[in-house]
Amino acid sequence: MRASILTIGNEILKGNTVNTNMAHIGHILTYAGHEVHRALIVSDNPEEIAWGIRASLEAGDLVVTTGGLGPTFDDMTVESISNALGLKTEVDQRELSFLKERYAGRGIELTEGRLKMVRLPAGSRALHNPVGAAPGVYLRHDNKTIIILPGVPAEMKAILDSILPEIKSGDRKYAQETFPLEGIMESSLAPLIEKIMKKWGGKVYIKSHPQRSEMNNPKLNVEVSAWDKNMKMAMESVATVVAEIKENYRNYIGK
Amino acid sequence: MRASILTIGNEILKGNTVNTNMAHIGHILTYAGHEVHRALIVSDNPEEIAWGIRASLEAGDLVVTTGGLGPTFDDMTVESISNALGLKTEVDQRELSFLKERYAGRGIELTEGRLKMVRLPAGSRALHNPVGAAPGVYLRHDNKTIIILPGVPAEMKAILDSILPEIKSGDRKYAQETFPLEGIMESSLAPLIEKIMKKWGGKVYIKSHPQRSEMNNPKLNVEVSAWDKNMKMAMESVATVVAEIKENYRNYIGK
Repeated sequence: MRASILTIGNEILKGNTVNTNMAHIGHILTYAGHEVHRALIVSDNPEEIAWGIRASLEAGDLVVTTGGLGPTFDDMTVESISNALGLKTEVDQRELSFLKERYAGRGIELTEGRLKMVRLPAGSRALHNPVGAAPGVYLRHDNKTIIILPGVPAEMKAILDSILPEIKSGDRKYAQETFPLEGIMESSLAPLIEKIMKKWGGKVYIKSHPQRSEMNNPKLNVEVSAWDKNMKMAMESVATVVAEIKENYRNYIGK
Repeated sequence: MRASILTIGNEILKGNTVNTNMAHIGHILTYAGHEVHRALIVSDNPEEIAWGIRASLEAGDLVVTTGGLGPTFDDMTVESISNALGLKTEVDQRELSFLKERYAGRGIELTEGRLKMVRLPAGSRALHNPVGAAPGVYLRHDNKTIIILPGVPAEMKAILDSILPEIKSGDRKYAQETFPLEGIMESSLAPLIEKIMKKWGGKVYIKSHPQRSEMNNPKLNVEVSAWDKNMKMAMESVATVVAEIKENYRNYIGK
């Protein structure tokens, strides 16, 4: 199944915050059997969020979003996604009771900003947040799954963990191994990679990542990965290809 | 001027690599006077790259891309962008001579994979890479500017630095200050932020980032930023608002 990730937040676009959320979600989804095909970062702006959710759904059957669920004026993810998909929002009664406990129970007013956090798309399911106030959202729409998560990393991770058993793919497994190669240029290794990938007919994917400049004592990280219907088969393909590269790369040095 | 950033690479989507390139480019562009409006990450796939450049151009007058310029089979950024924009590619003679020196000068064959690195969109300008082999590209298209950079961070940074004087905005400056606030919940501070932002009529932007859970000894980072026609004015606005928040936030604790 193809997946997309949508991050909402100006602080990411300005480079104030490195998007580690995206990397975490990408890693989790990949090992849960979903090929992440596209990732988008949009600003805190209703039109951009609407564009983002449409472009994400276009590329994936599973869309995970992060950011914009809090109590401040610029937290507008749920409302913007609901509008974009033509859904009304309604207060989740169970989450409202948690919120009442959390705030009203301590004599703190349930302001409009706080109430907004439990106003969820009609037909969705709240994903309880064990760390913070704003719940996540699980939504099925047009035969696709949308999971809306907060941007605070600890909250995002906890909710994603809680929903993981439900979104794990049963019949697609991903295996990967990365190893260093020294003394060979990326451009020298390229023909070997191409040859092996052709032989495997798309079943195995090989990517080289230069760690130093080509000409000056080159160093690469080589990543070998495979998708298969079970983990054992995927791991075997990866191990075979890693061995094949290690046995043959010396013949390509200096070429 | 609005800007977009396009990152190309499966390793980002899988979460193998955290997208620090995006953060670096976002930071540099913001302080060069460009509002980064959208950032996209696409897989090493010609159709996705084509989609990515179109969606980036739709949102920005300046588009910076990173990744996919190397000598391997899955480095296809320049060709895919050229195809998407209806441009032919042609060998850059000056960069070809650098390449010849680099490889042929040491008895290394100029393979198709290596040659690909100096085949640039017709009408573009090569941005020499002082660190690695693949040059960047400066391209004007439909009154917009596209800058194509490698994905290796040191190479991306060096080329971006070299072109920065040309893309700096003369009449838009950005100033920002971030400070911590302890003992106040994000949802308690929210009405103050909203009030100040309304008073400034969109001239100043305030965003709070929770560092800990709301209920448990809360801690926020508060980011205040402003765009203005000169740096002095932008900095003054930011300093005034920072002082305003610090003076008033205590009145909002526990509300």
